Amino acid sequence: MNMEKISKARIKWIRSLHQKKVREQEGVFVVEGEKMVLEGLASELHTLVALVAHKDELSIVPEDFREAAFSADTTEMEQLSGLKTPNKLLAVFKRPELTATQKGFELALDSVQDPGNMGTILRLADWFGIERIVCSRETVDCYNPKVVQASMGAIFRIQVVYTDLLSYLSDTKRPVYGALLNGENHHAVSYKPDGILLMGNEGNGISDKLIPLITQAVTIPRFGAAESLNVATATAILLAEVRKND
Amino acid sequence: MNMEKISKARIKWIRSLHQKKVREQEGVFVVEGEKMVLEGLASELHTLVALVAHKDELSIVPEDFREAAFSADTTEMEQLSGLKTPNKLLAVFKRPELTATQKGFELALDSVQDPGNMGTILRLADWFGIERIVCSRETVDCYNPKVVQASMGAIFRIQVVYTDLLSYLSDTKRPVYGALLNGENHHAVSYKPDGILLMGNEGNGISDKLIPLITQAVTIPRFGAAESLNVATATAILLAEVRKND
Repeated sequence: MNMEKISKARIKWIRSLHQKKVREQEGVFVVEGEKMVLEGLASELHTLVALVAHKDELSIVPEDFREAAFSADTTEMEQLSGLKTPNKLLAVFKRPELTATQKGFELALDSVQDPGNMGTILRLADWFGIERIVCSRETVDCYNPKVVQASMGAIFRIQVVYTDLLSYLSDTKRPVYGALLNGENHHAVSYKPDGILLMGNEGNGISDKLIPLITQAVTIPRFGAAESLNVATATAILLAEVRKND
Repeated sequence: MNMEKISKARIKWIRSLHQKKVREQEGVFVVEGEKMVLEGLASELHTLVALVAHKDELSIVPEDFREAAFSADTTEMEQLSGLKTPNKLLAVFKRPELTATQKGFELALDSVQDPGNMGTILRLADWFGIERIVCSRETVDCYNPKVVQASMGAIFRIQVVYTDLLSYLSDTKRPVYGALLNGENHHAVSYKPDGILLMGNEGNGISDKLIPLITQAVTIPRFGAAESLNVATATAILLAEVRKND
């Protein structure tokens, strides 16, 4: 098993992908860690662009991918990695071509900012079988390394679209369920299978301009003294309700 | 308005509270940041032990507490703080005396390890009006600064007990609802108002020795491909169901 040694030029290119702008221009994203990389290799949605393995751990590269892989020593892995302790595997994947809108229930995110929340929401969508998340352009980049890592592989199975949410929600004929503080008790709402659940920003909630596009406001009643629910935990609670009768 | 300057001995003592062992011996915990400290001062459950304000920001100390407060300069605030950028206020509070078991619904945590999850769970309990969380001794310290911060003030309103969970659950006559992968669909479960919801460790779930003490196993059905739900999001979903008919 001979793997090509990684070149200085390729190291430089992968390092440049730590910048959001470059990742976008190149249409790719970086994944670190054996488990996540192997999930990515098995996924249909994303295509492998580059695979780098630590030279002492080449056996973890699946046979089908060995020809396309590069080996790197410890110093090189450290140069490539965004983590304090680099993993044995790192890969670059191409972002998926987005398919036309599907009929299933969708999630829409209005300026969710925290990478950890975004990763948790991807993971939740993956659990509840939501195939597509539509995000405002102000929402955190789902290919941010922290999001990729927190998604636990969900990034490989879910379509994430960044678009003008105002146009998107204005043009849709689907019912839009918006998480607000003064809506109907979420237990009493019947969610249509082609609906869209709209969640807002961590501090400010759903922006004023999107509020008129909500067809059904939903609320998770409060029983104690907390000021607010985190957006990821609120999404968890509402998606569980969406699937109540499925 | 004259506030006493903080002494070297007091700085040394507060710094020593970064260690869990010392925090436990002293029966106190440290809170940083104006919002959280003011919430703590207003709470009934915890007593103020020491309050330190940056000398240029003494006006943010409520009048009733000025006699008990100390002023510190920037260097001293940096010495005291566990954060990269110290806040204007820092306080030490006494842990509450635990009252006898109450009748309301309780949450029990079996070896939850991640401070962020623990903080999120405290915040959820605070939203859903759960007054008491009973933790196994292996569960992360709720007075860990990361937990205190992530709890968004919930730490001041919720009783957290660390005990031998095996004895506790063996001795109780309340129904114990355990989050497992092979239980009843959580939407179909009727939760008794004096029940206990038992949540397990991030990687391993509920420990084998506690499983026989579960009176009703509950499951959040999966519709997609994710391997697991995060313990905090699962707690969110189940607590929302517990309060379904309240």
